[in-house]
Amino acid sequence: METKTMNIKVEKAKTSKIGQVDFNNLAFGNVFTDHMVVCNYKNGSWEVPEIVPYHPITLDPSAKIFHYGQSIFEGMKAYKDGNDDIWLFRPMDNCKRLNISAKRMAIPEIPEDYFMESLKALLKLEKDWIPQTPGSSLYIRPFIFASGNGFHASPADEYMFIIAFAPSGAYFSGKVKVLIEEKYSRSANGGVGFAKAGGNYAGQFYPTQLAVDKGYNQVIWTDDNTHEYIEEAGAMNIFVRINDTLLTAPTSDRILDGITRRSILKIAESEGIPVEERKIAVSELIKAAKDGSLKEMFGAGTAAVISPISTFGFRDVDYDLPETPNSYAALFKKCITDIQYNRAEDNFGWRLKV
Amino acid sequence: METKTMNIKVEKAKTSKIGQVDFNNLAFGNVFTDHMVVCNYKNGSWEVPEIVPYHPITLDPSAKIFHYGQSIFEGMKAYKDGNDDIWLFRPMDNCKRLNISAKRMAIPEIPEDYFMESLKALLKLEKDWIPQTPGSSLYIRPFIFASGNGFHASPADEYMFIIAFAPSGAYFSGKVKVLIEEKYSRSANGGVGFAKAGGNYAGQFYPTQLAVDKGYNQVIWTDDNTHEYIEEAGAMNIFVRINDTLLTAPTSDRILDGITRRSILKIAESEGIPVEERKIAVSELIKAAKDGSLKEMFGAGTAAVISPISTFGFRDVDYDLPETPNSYAALFKKCITDIQYNRAEDNFGWRLKV
Repeated sequence: METKTMNIKVEKAKTSKIGQVDFNNLAFGNVFTDHMVVCNYKNGSWEVPEIVPYHPITLDPSAKIFHYGQSIFEGMKAYKDGNDDIWLFRPMDNCKRLNISAKRMAIPEIPEDYFMESLKALLKLEKDWIPQTPGSSLYIRPFIFASGNGFHASPADEYMFIIAFAPSGAYFSGKVKVLIEEKYSRSANGGVGFAKAGGNYAGQFYPTQLAVDKGYNQVIWTDDNTHEYIEEAGAMNIFVRINDTLLTAPTSDRILDGITRRSILKIAESEGIPVEERKIAVSELIKAAKDGSLKEMFGAGTAAVISPISTFGFRDVDYDLPETPNSYAALFKKCITDIQYNRAEDNFGWRLKV
Repeated sequence: METKTMNIKVEKAKTSKIGQVDFNNLAFGNVFTDHMVVCNYKNGSWEVPEIVPYHPITLDPSAKIFHYGQSIFEGMKAYKDGNDDIWLFRPMDNCKRLNISAKRMAIPEIPEDYFMESLKALLKLEKDWIPQTPGSSLYIRPFIFASGNGFHASPADEYMFIIAFAPSGAYFSGKVKVLIEEKYSRSANGGVGFAKAGGNYAGQFYPTQLAVDKGYNQVIWTDDNTHEYIEEAGAMNIFVRINDTLLTAPTSDRILDGITRRSILKIAESEGIPVEERKIAVSELIKAAKDGSLKEMFGAGTAAVISPISTFGFRDVDYDLPETPNSYAALFKKCITDIQYNRAEDNFGWRLKV
C-alpha cells in the first residue's frame, strides 16, 4: 500500500473557518474544511495535485459536466483515535474503485499515488477538523468531473480531480424505513450502475421523493426487468438475515461493489456466520417476514455505515422487522468501527495510519 | 403558443467576438455567442431570467452538479430566411420536454414563458450570429443544473437555467456507420432514458468509443434485457425502411421522444407512407438486409437532422445499405428543412417567427 513520496505543493488559507463550526451539531456534508486537493487533467495527462484553500470553481457554461453528466466520486471517512493518530479504512479500495468508475465513464484514470499522497497530505493539514464527537466523522469526498468545453456529446478533453472534506454527523438518524420499488429502476444490465457515476444518483431522487412522501426514508431497488429481486438502496448495499443466514445480492454491472459490503462479508466469514451471496426474491422476503424467519435487514455503506432497517414496505403493506437479540447489524458495526477508530486489532489489514 | 410579454433585463457585452469567427469553417458546438440567458432557482422559485454577457460560472466544489449528475438539457436550432427573418421549429415541444425531463430528475420545472420569452429575446439580440452557410445553423442549448451545495445525495435547493448559442457546422459529416450493441446498454425499464438527462450521455461515451475504435461512428442501443430489439442511437432516433414501410421503435421510458422523430411520423402520414411504430428485432433487420428488402436506415435528431446510415455492424459482420432512389431520408430532410428555413408552406404549424 505504500506509495512513493510526492512533493505536494500547499497554498495555505489565510484564515481558518474552524472556529465557526459547532462540532456538536453537525449535519451530513454541508460544512467544508479550509483546504482541498485540486488536480487538473490537460493535454492528455494529470498534472501534479496541489493543496489550495477551499474555493469556488469557475467553468465555462459549455463545460461538459453541465450537459453530459460525466462525473464520478468516492465516499470515505477519516478517524482519529485517543492518541490523535489519524486512520483511513481500506483507502486503496476507494482509489481502485474510482478508477473502475473512471473507465466506464470514459474519464482518464487518476494515478494511485496522486490520489493517496494528496489525500494523506490534506488529512495531515486538516487534522483538527476530524470530529471526535460520537457518531460524527470526517467525510472525505474525492471526485472527478469533465471540465472541458463543448456541446458535442463526446468525452471532455479536460477534467478536474478534487478531494474535499466535510466534518459530518450521521447520514441517517435512527432506524430506516424502506420501500421496495417495482416501477422505477436504478440501473440497466450493461449500464453504469456499478460505477459511482453522478447520474446514478440524480435518477433516484424523484422515485425516492415519492417514497419519502409516503413516509419511507429510502428505496430498495429491484432489477429493471422483472422487479422480482432486490438489488441495492442507492446509497447502501442491502443485507438480510433469515434465521441465522446472512444474505446479500451478488454484485453485478447494476450493483455497486460496496467496501462496507465487502468488509461485512469478510467479518461474517471470520465469525462463522453462514453467508449466501445470491439473488434475493421479494417474495422470499415477504414469506420470511410472515413466518418469522426474517430476523434483520440493514443497509451498509460508507456514509451510512450500517443502518438497521425497521420496516420495509411493498405494495402498500408494511412489514416490521423484529428486535433481534445479538443482532448481526450491531456486531458488524462494532467490529468495523473498532477497526476504524483503532480500538481493536486489525486482523484484516484494513486500517492505514496517515 | 403566444406567451405574455415579459420585460427581460439585458446587460450587453462591451465588445463582440463575432469578428473572430470563421463562419465558413464551423465545427459543432465549440464557438459561443456574446450573450446568454441566466435564470436562477432560489428559495423555492425561479427568478426572472436575464440576458448577460456570456461568462464563466462560479460554483462551490460541493455543488450537486459535480456529484450527483442532476442536470437536463435541450437541443434546438434557429434558422434565418432570405428576408433575415428568424424562425424556430416546434420550440414549445422542447420547452415541454425540458419540463418532462425536469420532473423525472427532481428539478423544478421552468415556467414556459420564462423559457420562450428569454429565448426569443436572446435570438433577437444575437441575430447576426445565425449562420447562413448551407449546412450550418445556430445551435441552441437550454439547460438546467443543480447549483445548490452539499454532499448529501438528495435534490439540490438551487438550480441554474441557462440558454447558450453555438453557431455550428454539421454534427456528422457524410453518411454514418453504426454498430448494433448487445453488451452495453443505454437505459433501464423504469429508468431515465426518456429524459434528456446528463448522465444518459456520459454512460454512452465508453461503449461508443469502443465502437469508434472498430471504425463505426455511433452505437445503436438495444433493450437491456434481451438485446434483441433496437432502441435509439443516443443522439438520434432510428428509422428503418423495409420495402416501402417506414419503421421506428415506439417511445418508452427508455427512449427519447424525439421532436424530429415526431415530425417525420407526421410527414410520412401526410405523404401516405406506410408507418409501423413497433419493436424492431435485430434478426428482422439482418434478414431484410440479406433478402434485399432493407432499403434505408437513418437517424433523426435536432443536432444531426436526418443522417443516412451507410452500414450497420452486428457481431463482427457489416451490412451495407443500398443506394435507394427516392429515398425517404432525403424526402424528410427536404420537407423539414424547407419548413425550418421558411422555404415552403408550413402545413403543420411547426414554425415560429421570432
